[in-house]
Amino acid sequence: MTTVLERDLVQRRGFANVAAADGTVTGFRMDLRMPNYRGIAGSLVEGVEVVVDGESFPPEAGVWTLQGRTFTLDELRASTDVRWAADELATVTVPRPGGLRLGPHQVAVAVRLRAPYIPAFAQPSVFRAEGVRVVVPDAPITGPRLGVSLYSYAGDMFTSMTLEDAMADIADLGATGIEILGEAHVPGYPEPSSAWIDTWHASLERHGLVPTNLGAWVDTAMWRDRDLTVDEGAAQLARDLRLAHRLGFGFLRPKFGVVSAELDPHPIWAPAVEKVLDLAADLDVVICPEIHSPTPLHHPVVDGYREFMRRTGSKHFRLMVDTGIFQTVPVDDGHEGFAKGKRPAFLEPLAVPVSDLEEMIDDVAFIQTKFFEIDDAGRDLHIPWEPIVDVLRRTGWDGWLSSEYEGRREPYRGRDQVRRQHALLRGLLRG
Amino acid sequence: MTTVLERDLVQRRGFANVAAADGTVTGFRMDLRMPNYRGIAGSLVEGVEVVVDGESFPPEAGVWTLQGRTFTLDELRASTDVRWAADELATVTVPRPGGLRLGPHQVAVAVRLRAPYIPAFAQPSVFRAEGVRVVVPDAPITGPRLGVSLYSYAGDMFTSMTLEDAMADIADLGATGIEILGEAHVPGYPEPSSAWIDTWHASLERHGLVPTNLGAWVDTAMWRDRDLTVDEGAAQLARDLRLAHRLGFGFLRPKFGVVSAELDPHPIWAPAVEKVLDLAADLDVVICPEIHSPTPLHHPVVDGYREFMRRTGSKHFRLMVDTGIFQTVPVDDGHEGFAKGKRPAFLEPLAVPVSDLEEMIDDVAFIQTKFFEIDDAGRDLHIPWEPIVDVLRRTGWDGWLSSEYEGRREPYRGRDQVRRQHALLRGLLRG
Repeated sequence: MTTVLERDLVQRRGFANVAAADGTVTGFRMDLRMPNYRGIAGSLVEGVEVVVDGESFPPEAGVWTLQGRTFTLDELRASTDVRWAADELATVTVPRPGGLRLGPHQVAVAVRLRAPYIPAFAQPSVFRAEGVRVVVPDAPITGPRLGVSLYSYAGDMFTSMTLEDAMADIADLGATGIEILGEAHVPGYPEPSSAWIDTWHASLERHGLVPTNLGAWVDTAMWRDRDLTVDEGAAQLARDLRLAHRLGFGFLRPKFGVVSAELDPHPIWAPAVEKVLDLAADLDVVICPEIHSPTPLHHPVVDGYREFMRRTGSKHFRLMVDTGIFQTVPVDDGHEGFAKGKRPAFLEPLAVPVSDLEEMIDDVAFIQTKFFEIDDAGRDLHIPWEPIVDVLRRTGWDGWLSSEYEGRREPYRGRDQVRRQHALLRGLLRG
Repeated sequence: MTTVLERDLVQRRGFANVAAADGTVTGFRMDLRMPNYRGIAGSLVEGVEVVVDGESFPPEAGVWTLQGRTFTLDELRASTDVRWAADELATVTVPRPGGLRLGPHQVAVAVRLRAPYIPAFAQPSVFRAEGVRVVVPDAPITGPRLGVSLYSYAGDMFTSMTLEDAMADIADLGATGIEILGEAHVPGYPEPSSAWIDTWHASLERHGLVPTNLGAWVDTAMWRDRDLTVDEGAAQLARDLRLAHRLGFGFLRPKFGVVSAELDPHPIWAPAVEKVLDLAADLDVVICPEIHSPTPLHHPVVDGYREFMRRTGSKHFRLMVDTGIFQTVPVDDGHEGFAKGKRPAFLEPLAVPVSDLEEMIDDVAFIQTKFFEIDDAGRDLHIPWEPIVDVLRRTGWDGWLSSEYEGRREPYRGRDQVRRQHALLRGLLRG
């Protein structure tokens, strides 16, 4: 699969601390996109000034890695056979004992390049850029495993990010779980080609990723004149269970159409799911109804799911919790598809007590770590992560925490916000 | 090769008039990107309201083409086996006798989609977008042939546009020439893999494109302690001539380092070129020095090139003219790599008389149709196209006009501006 580059000169992916062989952190690194329209001989590079949180690093400080080889700036200036290509990244490693603290940083760069076809008095050309870049801890964590839902990248997928980029972004966080939406991320859904499936598995292996949850829909109001029947709903579930299994997913979240403002699912949900429980067991895929704001944990909808679990005794039907239900502060960023100036119900603070999660944690198979914004200081503005993580610690819950960014869909914002969330969560989960 | 989608809902590529079999123009069409984060069953589409230059077309007016099949809105609502996938475009064709006039239009859309998992009172979801979209004439032209330099797409290449996208954009204009920069657009330059070269030729054929000019550099000041020798310069030229030939290009523009503010080329240019003139003849690739602002046509640099032509008698060394030399109005948009607030010399209006072009047209092999901005009314703000095209008409010049957009490098701007230029030029060149 192909990748594309981030437009900003300093790539978000790859911004990290670096360590010596003995584990001592010795500095930080960043990947730079060629800022000019053409690639150049390495000898034309005049270095990069870097400023991080007000601390300056001169052009001579950085060590350059180009086309797999590493150079000091003087070595690069004298080089004869290495290029900084327009479609390749340069890695600049800056020495700084201890590296950078974890989380977001203000980063500014000025890349200097010589262009002999421009009169000398106007040289070197200087290309400047600045923005926030995030260092994600690579220290071990205990308890839950971390993953990312590609829903987080809705503002980028297919336009400034390929599936391969999404995988590379996730792997770069040290995360291992990938959650996708069948209808968004599987070309040719519901029947992807064998070639695509082979590519999928090869890419997972390359990036060291495990498929977690496959998001699916049962659009009960698919037609305007009648609802889906139980058999039609069950057929869709069976199809998606088989697809999940073929792609390596252990969880399937079917989102049924709703019949109320509180998200009561269409009544076919229970008989339709019951028809495929044996198949789910055969394939070992857990079907997870999603508990999503504005539905709290203590609510007839959730009671219905838990009663179904008890009645059927199935281990292949368990709850998925979206952490948006714990939101304590309103979100006023709007949401695509909704009219401006009117806050949708799911952006109101539902503020479910975290103790409710603890109470029913044994029924919870999967957690989507929904969030809306983490600020430049690394603080989440809406979701209380410390008490949530405390519950997971106390109960020994060790399932997947799958990032689900649901804020504004400007290009690259989701990718940056996911990095911030992983810095935050890994900080809380450190072993 | 892979493509990515334009971020804006209404894609620039594919915006066009449509005609019946007998040639009567019956309406216009546009490609829409799925505005939501997931693909959906066609039955969930509730249509799109379209407004073009203040004229409204209701949701029922448009005919939808999805996955190669065409539907009225009612047929789509009742459909059972077609999807609007997140990674596929929907084509909406709107009837309007006579279509839209050529050039830029203000286009607004509101795409309506149903999501059964959202309470009915908040449905349908409505996704709005607006912007300028350009209809390029598909009528035949006479005289010069039209092409595009990928330099025009510098703000998009590798980040929001692949090489395959660039080819598709050019083909969508009805243009047939593709100009590239070796150091920017050939992965692995100067030694691309055979696999890549095969892909290059296959993509050219698929899009009906002809390689025109390969842009190359001879960076005479490549190292800081000494200049390139004649032999080193000649070796680079030979390498690039062979690459040009292998990729199917008929022209090579080598940009030598300069030694003055007026862009006097480094003196090795003449002996280095002379050493490869036989090779150029063998490969039938014309070497073209570029005449670029601030160097006018009557200038010792150009005199030197023309004298070289006369002295060697070679047909494989001829001039390339960049139309920036005809610029009559200053450009104050700045330029990447140059300090802000100071206008580089090449953005000053050099205003070379068009009669100078006529005078030496027989020495001109290639024209880069440099431009900076064409406004929403389709008018170029800096370059006088009518007299330039008049000269080409009068002299019967029939070489390549290769678009070279050099304005601001915001995403998608170059792609939009190239469409505007082709609408303008095709209007002037209509048979």
